[in-house]
Amino acid sequence: MSEINNQNNKESLERVAANGLINRRHLLGLGLAGAGGLISHSVLAADSSRVEIPAWSKMPGRDPSGYGSPSSFVGSYQRLAGAPNAVLPGSGVSRTPLHLLQGNITPNSLHFERHHSGIPAIDPAQHRLVIHGMVRQPLEFSYEDLLAYPMQSRIYFLECSGNSGANTSATAGDSSAAAIHGLLSCSEWTGVSLATLLDEAGIAEGATWVTSTGADGASMGRSIPLNKALRDVFIALYQNGEPIRPEQGYPMRLFVPGWEGNVSVKWLTQIKLADSPANFRDETSKYTDLLPDGKALQFTFPMGVKSLITSPSGQMSLRRQGLHEVSGVAWSGSGAISRVEVSADGGRSWADAHLDGTGQDLALTRFRIPWIWEGGPAVLQSRATDSAGQVQPTRAMVLANYDATNRYHFNGIQSWSVSAQGEVKNVYA
Amino acid sequence: MSEINNQNNKESLERVAANGLINRRHLLGLGLAGAGGLISHSVLAADSSRVEIPAWSKMPGRDPSGYGSPSSFVGSYQRLAGAPNAVLPGSGVSRTPLHLLQGNITPNSLHFERHHSGIPAIDPAQHRLVIHGMVRQPLEFSYEDLLAYPMQSRIYFLECSGNSGANTSATAGDSSAAAIHGLLSCSEWTGVSLATLLDEAGIAEGATWVTSTGADGASMGRSIPLNKALRDVFIALYQNGEPIRPEQGYPMRLFVPGWEGNVSVKWLTQIKLADSPANFRDETSKYTDLLPDGKALQFTFPMGVKSLITSPSGQMSLRRQGLHEVSGVAWSGSGAISRVEVSADGGRSWADAHLDGTGQDLALTRFRIPWIWEGGPAVLQSRATDSAGQVQPTRAMVLANYDATNRYHFNGIQSWSVSAQGEVKNVYA
Repeated sequence: MSEINNQNNKESLERVAANGLINRRHLLGLGLAGAGGLISHSVLAADSSRVEIPAWSKMPGRDPSGYGSPSSFVGSYQRLAGAPNAVLPGSGVSRTPLHLLQGNITPNSLHFERHHSGIPAIDPAQHRLVIHGMVRQPLEFSYEDLLAYPMQSRIYFLECSGNSGANTSATAGDSSAAAIHGLLSCSEWTGVSLATLLDEAGIAEGATWVTSTGADGASMGRSIPLNKALRDVFIALYQNGEPIRPEQGYPMRLFVPGWEGNVSVKWLTQIKLADSPANFRDETSKYTDLLPDGKALQFTFPMGVKSLITSPSGQMSLRRQGLHEVSGVAWSGSGAISRVEVSADGGRSWADAHLDGTGQDLALTRFRIPWIWEGGPAVLQSRATDSAGQVQPTRAMVLANYDATNRYHFNGIQSWSVSAQGEVKNVYA
Repeated sequence: MSEINNQNNKESLERVAANGLINRRHLLGLGLAGAGGLISHSVLAADSSRVEIPAWSKMPGRDPSGYGSPSSFVGSYQRLAGAPNAVLPGSGVSRTPLHLLQGNITPNSLHFERHHSGIPAIDPAQHRLVIHGMVRQPLEFSYEDLLAYPMQSRIYFLECSGNSGANTSATAGDSSAAAIHGLLSCSEWTGVSLATLLDEAGIAEGATWVTSTGADGASMGRSIPLNKALRDVFIALYQNGEPIRPEQGYPMRLFVPGWEGNVSVKWLTQIKLADSPANFRDETSKYTDLLPDGKALQFTFPMGVKSLITSPSGQMSLRRQGLHEVSGVAWSGSGAISRVEVSADGGRSWADAHLDGTGQDLALTRFRIPWIWEGGPAVLQSRATDSAGQVQPTRAMVLANYDATNRYHFNGIQSWSVSAQGEVKNVYA
């Protein structure tokens, strides 16, 4: 019945930008009466004579368990894990399936991974953290020692600086949002403030840098300035309530909010105060940005303001015309997300999306806007603005800053084309 | 070395309440120099000749995976699941291990369970949600239909109205925080506003109640007033990013923020608008509060303002004197948590704890305060105040409102005694 009024309904909807973007209040306050028929062709009048009772309603189901797992019907909820690396054993990634997730929190089992020498199986009873270098009193902590300290809990995103690097290549790959952008996750992290521990060790005069080393086979090491370390850096012990996972650094990792993921050293075993960076392998041969003049920029720490539409996104298909929710995530290493705009015409017109997050600094913020797809071609884009006033740049603007081979710190606007057949593809627009 | 100054250090710390509660700023801003030796006897000067490299640092670890799991060293992170119920098949619970968790988010695998006929294994492709009764147009939705609707994401606690009922018994059981209070969890829930769907169906004049029924063998049914349904109730489809788990109602559940968990009907299959409550079995024979005069109070919906200390808590042992972080969670069905006070002397003196949450309505809020245990007896308590001005009552105040057999809606102050041997026990104080 509702389909009969389909055409009339569409006319009454407030368009907020071209090519189908409409006012979300139609669905949440102004009333859906005008949009009902647009939502789904399978919304039907209930047949009052329907008496078929499904089998699962006729018997008791299984009992409670100690540790739950997803329904067997959601088997596709997996990280995108690459094949083992034969040349560099243990070097690899797995990517968060952003296109399948909702909200802002990433479940621990789906948090992205990036390892340089695999995941060590660490016995917390044997693990030690040493703080030394330019301190008055070197200290050694067991896992149990750290558990006695005051803690803090914060929701923070974590993003690899190589995330989205695929979109710096000359031609747009036909890839999913996970394959391009899946080195991004967001959790509630709990741990001990590094300032507390450094205060106890006593910072020697002249110390300006903090270097950290992991207990993995690669001895991952990174340097950060002391002033950042004292501001908001902490030793993460818990993730979304439970102890951090082995692939996130169990039993402990450094967590450096808003900065490129690589500096949040996992399996943390050494913190050394110094008057200069250590120039570790992973801050010289890697994790530097090659500039147009051939020089490499070292220590680009905060992640840029960024967003992407996760639904619809690459390799998805729109199965029907009518109303869809365009939804995605936005974040910035410089503060909170203050605005996300969405375009359905490749950036010619924009509408403000609804922000659906905690409003907290350095956390993912979900955005949403209703969109009527009427079967024509479209190019969907999102553009984030952060509380520092930074606006997400276009792909071309980002590329102009670097040598063509640079893959780090790409935060350009993502474009997804929608064909007349409903196929969604990664494009450069 | 730091232990030598132990006694002098203690004198310099600002006491904020009796029996060892101190100002948290000593650990986060005022400087730890005065408290260092109190934290742990195993904080030692690092031996600079230490060269032992653990085995896991000498080889590549395992590769990334599709779906992660906890370290094998954290085997005790399990829900407290009861034995299968032989008399009522499928009736049972599992409790969140609150005493082992940190922060405010409960991982999906550890979210508490309460089933009346077990967990049905529902194929989402076969599942239907029907909205009928006093509506202009009955509607039927598939799971796919609902995925096309605008969604919302919010962090909300969920608490069973029978939670903490053990502490209404005449004598205090020697139990853990999980065993007493573990029918409590908190997640980021994402779903479709019920108001949107009811608006589409069209609410008939005179409708004042919404009744909901699950597809489990028990046909769990509950009624809530229409005005609440239109305010903030939604159909939850995702929990902490991924599809809700089978034990949480997969593929869909009702979510009624702040109200007793039982009304958030799982495996939701029917919503019926009516001009009165349905008086389902589970709102007449159960989930009513027996009063001192023998009458039963029906429909006590919002959960009371409440808190408990999770660390240290029942059946734990303090292994050493000195500084500990007293930490716990607070929540209210009437708003946000505005204050949590902690006492170490059974309620004679109180100090304000630090609040470490999102500050959002109807979500768990972690609280923290440093405490120096000097080996004497103590009784630890917490007392929450919410944004509506409600203050968590004592156990005696709650009991006075009900018949002695009532087990629902107990939100009295929890007392944990600490013996001179460091043993922590549930007590009535």
